[in-house]
Amino acid sequence: LDDVAEAPAALLVELPQRDLGGRLPPWDDLVAQVDWARDRGAAAHLDGARLWEASAGYGRPPAEIAGLFDTTYVSFYKGIGALAGCCLAGPLDVVAEVREWRRRMGGTLYGLWPGAASALSCLRRRLPLMPAYLERARAIADAVRDLPGVTVVPDPPQAPMLHLLLRTGHDGFTAAARSLAEDGLWTWESAVPTGDPDVVRVELSVGDATLAVPVAEIRGAIAALVG
Amino acid sequence: LDDVAEAPAALLVELPQRDLGGRLPPWDDLVAQVDWARDRGAAAHLDGARLWEASAGYGRPPAEIAGLFDTTYVSFYKGIGALAGCCLAGPLDVVAEVREWRRRMGGTLYGLWPGAASALSCLRRRLPLMPAYLERARAIADAVRDLPGVTVVPDPPQAPMLHLLLRTGHDGFTAAARSLAEDGLWTWESAVPTGDPDVVRVELSVGDATLAVPVAEIRGAIAALVG
Repeated sequence: LDDVAEAPAALLVELPQRDLGGRLPPWDDLVAQVDWARDRGAAAHLDGARLWEASAGYGRPPAEIAGLFDTTYVSFYKGIGALAGCCLAGPLDVVAEVREWRRRMGGTLYGLWPGAASALSCLRRRLPLMPAYLERARAIADAVRDLPGVTVVPDPPQAPMLHLLLRTGHDGFTAAARSLAEDGLWTWESAVPTGDPDVVRVELSVGDATLAVPVAEIRGAIAALVG
Repeated sequence: LDDVAEAPAALLVELPQRDLGGRLPPWDDLVAQVDWARDRGAAAHLDGARLWEASAGYGRPPAEIAGLFDTTYVSFYKGIGALAGCCLAGPLDVVAEVREWRRRMGGTLYGLWPGAASALSCLRRRLPLMPAYLERARAIADAVRDLPGVTVVPDPPQAPMLHLLLRTGHDGFTAAARSLAEDGLWTWESAVPTGDPDVVRVELSVGDATLAVPVAEIRGAIAALVG
């Protein structure tokens, strides 16, 4: 950040950092980054689509994490599993401006109560489960890191999600995933290419479905996918 | 329409015509209007937010009405009572273009299945009830048209909705409506002003809730509202 020459208007931080496998910066680094923005008169915005997962990872309540920032966006249809919808928290004047722009951009349904009801009910049900999801993510990492051709990112997981780098080709992966699905275990429809043509990447978000599958069975599935 | 001097690009028809109390043009007039557009190479679009109500009014299936037009828009959260959502029917190439613009304009949620499921289930449940709603709208008109200070628009109703012109002031109306609500009958929060300062307008869409109230009780409520 010290290399940024221009005056910044805003600092945007995503927690956890999805493309890095759900990595969380150390808490003190995060506080220092937000301070950096404040010292320069810049706004600090949190992309907290997975704030719930970050909360488990930091072992701090969502409000404490969001409280560092000027504005926080959260998503309800990801880890929480509610209907499509999201929410922005921030100062009243900023939220009022956002509300106006939401309408200008065509993003307002006539009624939002179904989304709100679904979000409230899923928050009540699944927020308390996030530590259990995190524990399961770490148990899965423990169970698969010794498999040949498997790399866990990050290792250990820092949130109830992780990436796996699998030393296999796209076609072999897809065939193996279809075979697992036919036997009743849905894993991934396909994998994401990486810079290495012999390695593909998959993302595992741990939720109710993953929690319901024994870790040994997950280890077996990953072994089958890596071929 | 014959007075339109410029070459029209599109003819847009709303059925039923909400601001006219749910009026429907005679079927032959409607066909002639669409023919007028076609003769000039213009597209004919149906604002069929209440196509379901129009279907009851014409005594023709929705597909026959929509079939007159190039494109038809329907709404799911009005007479059908589903979650917020709507649908456009038309030629594949037009719909493909609309789909692209919907995304450009920011109008696409990540998942639309809750809206689709709700619409399908409410269509199955309420479409068959539209003729009963229409019958009840006409029974209500029969019951209130002799009340002093009450005008039914249109009379008789042509769809399962009607407007009532009430010879009363805004404040008196609002107080009477609140009093009815406190006694357990929700009518309207407020009335719409008209050109005449002594007359206000209310819109009654007949659905399950109205069907559940005896017509005599509705007559009593309207009498109370007109003061």
